[in-house]
Amino acid sequence: MIRARVHVRLKSGVLDPQGRAVADALQGLGYAEALDARVGKVIELDLDETDPARARARASEMAARLLANPVIESFEVEVV
Amino acid sequence: MIRARVHVRLKSGVLDPQGRAVADALQGLGYAEALDARVGKVIELDLDETDPARARARASEMAARLLANPVIESFEVEVV
Repeated sequence: MIRARVHVRLKSGVLDPQGRAVADALQGLGYAEALDARVGKVIELDLDETDPARARARASEMAARLLANPVIESFEVEVV
Repeated sequence: MIRARVHVRLKSGVLDPQGRAVADALQGLGYAEALDARVGKVIELDLDETDPARARARASEMAARLLANPVIESFEVEVV
């Protein structure tokens, strides 16, 4: 079994209201140095696969088709 | 300015319905090798700070107080 991690983040320039809310909440708690925050996600996949190169290629395909929204998000695949 | 990344994931043993839904959806799309998935989040913080050690300590504090739920989630802080 191979584990792949897909990191999905909003493209730069895309407004991130959730991140803005996090930064505001941190400032409200007294963390004045928290200027901005961006929230992304990580999907850890357990793949029934033995070839790391093929695992990476398939995970990239899964990310492009289901895990990320290519209009506003970018992704990176990491095989662990 | 220092950028810190806080990786938040569910502790092992905690049920992850969102991850289960992702794995099921991937299988439905024909990715039979997708046995399981776990979904975590990454918060990228822009900190008005110059000392990396202090940035890391403060980001850990923010994670423990606001960004992660210590009952069900664990976190790691990375200073970029």
